[in-house]
Amino acid sequence: MYKNYQEFSKLNLKLDMSRGKPSPEQLDLSLSLLNETGISDQIKSSEIDCRNYGIQLGLPEVRELFASLLDVPMKQVVVEGNSSLALMHDVIVFALLYGTPDNSPWSSNKPITFLCPVPGYDRHFAILEAFGINMINVPLLEDGPDMDLVESLVLDDASIKGMWCVPKYSNPTGTVYSSEIINRLASMSTAASDFRLFWDDAYRFHHLTEQRISIPNILDLCQKAGHSDRAITFASTSKMTFAGSGLAILASSQTNIDWWQRCTSVRSIGPDKLNQLRHLRFFQNSVSIESLMDQHRSILKPKFDAVDSIFEKYLGELDNVSWSKPLGGYFIDLITPPSLAKRTVELAKNAGIILTPAGATFPYGADPDDKHIRIAPSYPNLDEIKLAAQGVSLALLHAITEQKDKA
Amino acid sequence: MYKNYQEFSKLNLKLDMSRGKPSPEQLDLSLSLLNETGISDQIKSSEIDCRNYGIQLGLPEVRELFASLLDVPMKQVVVEGNSSLALMHDVIVFALLYGTPDNSPWSSNKPITFLCPVPGYDRHFAILEAFGINMINVPLLEDGPDMDLVESLVLDDASIKGMWCVPKYSNPTGTVYSSEIINRLASMSTAASDFRLFWDDAYRFHHLTEQRISIPNILDLCQKAGHSDRAITFASTSKMTFAGSGLAILASSQTNIDWWQRCTSVRSIGPDKLNQLRHLRFFQNSVSIESLMDQHRSILKPKFDAVDSIFEKYLGELDNVSWSKPLGGYFIDLITPPSLAKRTVELAKNAGIILTPAGATFPYGADPDDKHIRIAPSYPNLDEIKLAAQGVSLALLHAITEQKDKA
Repeated sequence: MYKNYQEFSKLNLKLDMSRGKPSPEQLDLSLSLLNETGISDQIKSSEIDCRNYGIQLGLPEVRELFASLLDVPMKQVVVEGNSSLALMHDVIVFALLYGTPDNSPWSSNKPITFLCPVPGYDRHFAILEAFGINMINVPLLEDGPDMDLVESLVLDDASIKGMWCVPKYSNPTGTVYSSEIINRLASMSTAASDFRLFWDDAYRFHHLTEQRISIPNILDLCQKAGHSDRAITFASTSKMTFAGSGLAILASSQTNIDWWQRCTSVRSIGPDKLNQLRHLRFFQNSVSIESLMDQHRSILKPKFDAVDSIFEKYLGELDNVSWSKPLGGYFIDLITPPSLAKRTVELAKNAGIILTPAGATFPYGADPDDKHIRIAPSYPNLDEIKLAAQGVSLALLHAITEQKDKA
Repeated sequence: MYKNYQEFSKLNLKLDMSRGKPSPEQLDLSLSLLNETGISDQIKSSEIDCRNYGIQLGLPEVRELFASLLDVPMKQVVVEGNSSLALMHDVIVFALLYGTPDNSPWSSNKPITFLCPVPGYDRHFAILEAFGINMINVPLLEDGPDMDLVESLVLDDASIKGMWCVPKYSNPTGTVYSSEIINRLASMSTAASDFRLFWDDAYRFHHLTEQRISIPNILDLCQKAGHSDRAITFASTSKMTFAGSGLAILASSQTNIDWWQRCTSVRSIGPDKLNQLRHLRFFQNSVSIESLMDQHRSILKPKFDAVDSIFEKYLGELDNVSWSKPLGGYFIDLITPPSLAKRTVELAKNAGIILTPAGATFPYGADPDDKHIRIAPSYPNLDEIKLAAQGVSLALLHAITEQKDKA
C-alpha cells in the first residue's frame, strides 16, 4: 500500500479507467461465438437465408429469445445492429424529423426538453446536446429519480418530450429504481402527449451479487396506466458477448414498433442476420445466458470489491467522501467533498491514471458541485485495479490537503 | 418456348424477380468468410482487440484495403456497418439536423431539392420522399444524366442541395457515365454552396464482361475543380460477400470525413470490427477480390444472356420495345410502348412472376410514360430465369394486344 501521492506518482503508471469496457478476460468467455456460423454449419435459420438481404426487425428466433428475456411479446421486440446507443439516437432522429406516431416532428416544435437524472450516462446527454435539445437535471435519489420534481415538471411543461432512465444498476451510481418510482413514471400525467421514457435497460443481466435483482416491467405498467406508447426499452449484448459486435434490442408498444419499422425500413435493407444467428446458437437459452453472466460476475466482482476495500482503507473515515456500492452494472460513483472532483481527476492523470473526466456524468459536462467521479473497474486487471484505486484515493487525499492549505 | 400468355399462366409459377438479391450460389462463393475469425485464430488486428468497443471509422487495415480499391487516401475512407444505404440515409439526416460543414441545417432551409436521374434506384428516392425533400427528374441518357439540364438547374436554384448518381452500371439501366459527364458534374457551378453529389458506386466491381470498365475518380476531379467537398462516394461489399452481412464504405474529402466522424460518434461507439476483420482476411488483396468477382460474373452472365436472348426472340422485332444490355450491375431496364409497363407487371404477377412495381424506378413511384420495367435476373436460378423472361415477354405481348383491341 502506497502512503502518499508523491510516492505513488513515481510509479509512472499508464492506466485507462475512463470507460466501462469489458476486459479481455471477459471477452474470452464468448470466444466460441466466433465459430457459431462456421463453414460446415447450416446458415439458414428456419426458412431464412441469413446471408441475404432483408428481415428488417431481426431474425424471428432471436426476437423470440429476447422477448422471453425481456418478458415482452415477440412482435414488440426488434433486434438490429451492434449498438443500442444507435437505436436510441435513431429514435430521437426519427422523432425530430418524422414525429412520434402521436405527434408532429419535434424539430418543428422547438424547444424540446428532456429530463436527465444525474449523475447519468454521458453518451445519453451527448446525443441531446448535439441536437440542441434542452436538458433539465433531476437528482437521482437512493431509489430512483426525484419523482416529486419529475411529476411537477412534466405536468407543467409540454416541451418536455422525454426522459433518460437507466432503471437498474444505473450508470454511474448503481441505483436500482424502486417499484414505487417505476409505477409513478408509468402513470404520471404529462403535458406532452408524446412524452417518452427512454428506458435504457443496459445492465439488466449484469449482476454483481447472487441477488439478481429484477424490477417491474415498464411496458406493462405503462399500458395498464393508459400510456401504452410511453416507454421504449433498449438493451444490448455488448457487455454479454463482444462489446463491439453484439446485438442491440429495442422493445415497445406495437404502435411504436410499427412506427420504428416504417422509419428504419427507409434506412437499410436489414440488419446483419449472421451475427444474430451466431448469438442465437451461442446463447441457446436463458439458463445458459445466466451461466455466462455468472462467469462475467466472477471476473468483475473481485475488481469492484478491491476498489471498495481500498477506498474504505484510505477514505473510509473522511467526512464528505462516499462511494456507491453497486449490486450490478459497471461503475462506482465516488463522491468527493465539493469542488474537488476535477482536481482529483487531474492529479490522478498526472500519476498516470486516466479517469472519466469529472463532470461527464452531467449534461453539458457540468457537475454543479464538482464532486462526482465515475470509476470504471471493468477493463484493467485486478492488480492494476488495486493500484488504480490506491492512486485515486491518494489523489483525492492530496486534493483535500491542497484545499485545506488554501483555506 | 411457350407461345402465348394464357398457356404460360397455367404453369402457376411462383417467382420473385422484384429485387436485386444475389443468388444462394453467389453467396456460397464467400462461405469461407464465415470461418475467418474462428476460435483458433488470433482476434486482434494490429494492436486493436476487434471484439471490444471503439475504432469509430473502421479498422485501419480495412480502410487501407478500400482506400487502394477506391483510389483514395486511407484517412478519407470510412468502413462502417453492413449497409451503404444507411450511410447515405445518415448523411442526409446529419445534413438536415446539423448542416453540412459549409452551411446551416437543411431542415432550417426548406425547401430542399435533389436532382434524380431517371430511371434510378427506388430506395434513393424513398429516403428523400420520407424526409419531404423535393425531387426533380433528370433524364438519364446513354452516357449519363442530361447535363445541359443539370447545369442549368443547379445554377439557377439554391434549394438544390444534392443529386443521386449511380455512375457505373446504373440501376436499372446499366448506364456508365462518360468521362465528359463526370467532369461536368465535378466542375459545374451550383447556386448552393453545400451542393453534394451522392456518388453511389454500388457496382464498381460488378462487371458482366471482361472489359472491367473503370471511370474517372470523382473525388479527384471535384478537388481539381475547386469543389473538394462536393462528392461523397458510397460502396459496399453486399453483392461481393453476403448481402446482409457485408461492409459499407464512405469516402470523401477530409473535411467531410471529419464532419462525418463528429456526427456519427454521437450515434455509436463504433462498428462491428470482427466482421471487418473477417472481410480483411477473406479478401486478402485486390487480385483475390477480382477473382471473386469473376466467379460472380460467371454465375450472373448466363442469366443476363438468357433474358436478352429470350427478349430478342419474343420482342426483338417490335417497334417501341427495347431493353438495356448492361456491361455490369444487377439489372435490365425493359422499355415497353407507352402506358404498358404497369399492365405488363400486373399480367406477369397474375402468371406468378413478381416484378419490381412499374414506376418504382422514378421518384414518387411515378413513371410519366409508364414504360419502364426493372428486370432483376440475379436471384432465381437459370431455368427459372428462362421461364420468367418468357413470362414477362408474353405478358408484354398480351398487354400490347389488349391495347390494340381497345383502340
